[in-house]
Amino acid sequence: MWRDLQPIGRDKDTRGYRRYAWTAADADCKVWFKEQAENRGLTLEVDRNGNQWAWLGDPEAGDAVVTGSHLDSVPDGGAFDGPLGVVSSFAALDELRRRGVEFTKPLAITNFGDEEGARFGLACVGSRLTGGHLTREQAFALKDGDGVSLPQAMERAGYDPEAIGPDPERLARIGAFIELHVEQGRALDLSGDAVGVASSIWPHGRWRFDFRGEANHAGTTRLVDRRDPMLSYAETVLAARREAELAGSVATFGKISVEPNGVNAIPSLVRGWLDSRAADQDALDQTVTGIEKAAREYAEKHGIDVSLTRESFTPVVEFDHALRDELTRILGTDTDLAVPVLGTGAGHDAGILASSIPTAMLFVRNPTGVSHSPAEFAAEDDCLAGVRALADVLEGLACT
Amino acid sequence: MWRDLQPIGRDKDTRGYRRYAWTAADADCKVWFKEQAENRGLTLEVDRNGNQWAWLGDPEAGDAVVTGSHLDSVPDGGAFDGPLGVVSSFAALDELRRRGVEFTKPLAITNFGDEEGARFGLACVGSRLTGGHLTREQAFALKDGDGVSLPQAMERAGYDPEAIGPDPERLARIGAFIELHVEQGRALDLSGDAVGVASSIWPHGRWRFDFRGEANHAGTTRLVDRRDPMLSYAETVLAARREAELAGSVATFGKISVEPNGVNAIPSLVRGWLDSRAADQDALDQTVTGIEKAAREYAEKHGIDVSLTRESFTPVVEFDHALRDELTRILGTDTDLAVPVLGTGAGHDAGILASSIPTAMLFVRNPTGVSHSPAEFAAEDDCLAGVRALADVLEGLACT
Repeated sequence: MWRDLQPIGRDKDTRGYRRYAWTAADADCKVWFKEQAENRGLTLEVDRNGNQWAWLGDPEAGDAVVTGSHLDSVPDGGAFDGPLGVVSSFAALDELRRRGVEFTKPLAITNFGDEEGARFGLACVGSRLTGGHLTREQAFALKDGDGVSLPQAMERAGYDPEAIGPDPERLARIGAFIELHVEQGRALDLSGDAVGVASSIWPHGRWRFDFRGEANHAGTTRLVDRRDPMLSYAETVLAARREAELAGSVATFGKISVEPNGVNAIPSLVRGWLDSRAADQDALDQTVTGIEKAAREYAEKHGIDVSLTRESFTPVVEFDHALRDELTRILGTDTDLAVPVLGTGAGHDAGILASSIPTAMLFVRNPTGVSHSPAEFAAEDDCLAGVRALADVLEGLACT
Repeated sequence: MWRDLQPIGRDKDTRGYRRYAWTAADADCKVWFKEQAENRGLTLEVDRNGNQWAWLGDPEAGDAVVTGSHLDSVPDGGAFDGPLGVVSSFAALDELRRRGVEFTKPLAITNFGDEEGARFGLACVGSRLTGGHLTREQAFALKDGDGVSLPQAMERAGYDPEAIGPDPERLARIGAFIELHVEQGRALDLSGDAVGVASSIWPHGRWRFDFRGEANHAGTTRLVDRRDPMLSYAETVLAARREAELAGSVATFGKISVEPNGVNAIPSLVRGWLDSRAADQDALDQTVTGIEKAAREYAEKHGIDVSLTRESFTPVVEFDHALRDELTRILGTDTDLAVPVLGTGAGHDAGILASSIPTAMLFVRNPTGVSHSPAEFAAEDDCLAGVRALADVLEGLACT
């Protein structure tokens, strides 16, 4: 199963995956999913937003237990982010059939479309549309780097873009959604556990800092006469690291744009984007407020104007506490050990769906912590532990 | 004269000039030059490299005194950098004719082509070709941002690119070259002088710093697990300012390139370009060595690989001492005051020609020091003082 999926959308040179929404690689992944469903006698459904569902039992019966993840990737992504959750879902069903359990509720395995947002710049498009968090107008306005709009891309892939929209009836038939995912950090590696349960998705925002100075000749302008915004930018980058250390959060300046960006020109404008996340809102506020204060102090010192724009913000997502406790109870019984409960700084379809239905996540250990890169990794034993844990959870939820 | 030149190649929105080599604006500037020559009964010559010469007297007689500058501009450049030298040359000739002096040597006024290098990325192409510092092969390989090669651009402008090459016979007929230029700094403003004489062009280099770390997820990667090259870059930018202050030099990071340059991605590569110049080689060496040492220390601290590439280097250009002393003598007599002698961090055609013929420069006060920007400025009184000083120098050199 895993072997059939591995070559799809893999770049020969980078060995990274390029599975972008509504491309040929994405279609190949969907064919793989369809085959897995058919091999197991499951009923395949494609919902109005292009998400795939493989049903065991009657989809209309209600109180369904659903598990799954996504198959698309970031540019040159790794093999595990997304696919591990889908493959583990099918493998967990196989395990439950080996155990000979009897399902008392309908079960579905899902592949949500365009989770990474690599093509159209917005993450979790499939689950956002279904949950009603993205309007048809917003979705129709999305364009990829070549100017192809989302509806055009859907049409080219043989889907009807007119069908897209919220799907509350579908969500109302779901009693619990469980997403298994490779951990994108090293918490499980550090605690020595193969599998953990998610507590929450950290609050997360992006801020644009515009540092405006004065363009001038890099050879002839005395240092004291300069208003060089690159200096304020540099001091703010270092302040971001210090503030994040103080608050126990993360803060990253990964994107920059400079005008005129000439070797012999003092810049007139340096634009830097801050990505910051923290376990709770207070820590995030402390981080960003501290960085802003430092930026303004440094800017004043250098005669630079600085302005701050919050470009996006997602508040904390607390996963359903009852479901989370149920998972830790089920898994704790199995292993005789307390299962670690951990927050995550990354967004997921489960985070989107959590506002509509009881949702939980399982994480599988990633010894390097590396994510969104071909170096992303989970050991085979840990993957199998993940499958067993997911099977235990599904048995506990759907077979009682 | 000045009024006719002003509208050519000026952008309506920025009010800056966009006079790039071999464009329509460049052709219009050359027509203006031709008319100025004709109005004064001078003989116009266009040399094999497209530079314009307006002769008074016999070009073949030898020991000619030549003055001039360039008419092209940087992107959104100011009105004075280049044109002030050409306009002042014609105005100085008018002044000498009013004085009724008799020329004992041939005099020429020049407009050197493509001094700024805004289109093809290499400065002083006209004077480099003439002086033999740029081979035909190198010149033919130059391309602009749209992929148009220099010979293609010359052909489209009606010039024969096959003709280009060194012109030693022409240079051998020149006894002295004087370039008047708006100052690109504030030395004259600080000393309270309208006009100064150049001592040298500072040694000058460009270095590319490649900081390589590890791309990772900005939300899920713990601070201690990061190898973020943006931090090393930021610390190096600040070190550059400190080292320049210590050495009395200038050092600028004005250009940057980041991979993958995503808001939610810790960069794998930050590439920063350093431009540094100093009054002498020792100070420049001290600056760049200090920056490199700091960069390596910080890089090691963050687990970053740093590599340094010197992309260009121009050693100090000392202008002809005898000619420089002659200028200060002539100007000192006129004003009863010592004329300030100053170095400059900017390159000029005069710097290129200085290796072939005795060359000197006059600077006119720029109260803001701003250059390569529409804010570049020289007061009318200072411009007139520049014309008088240039007339004095030409009288002293060509009429004795």
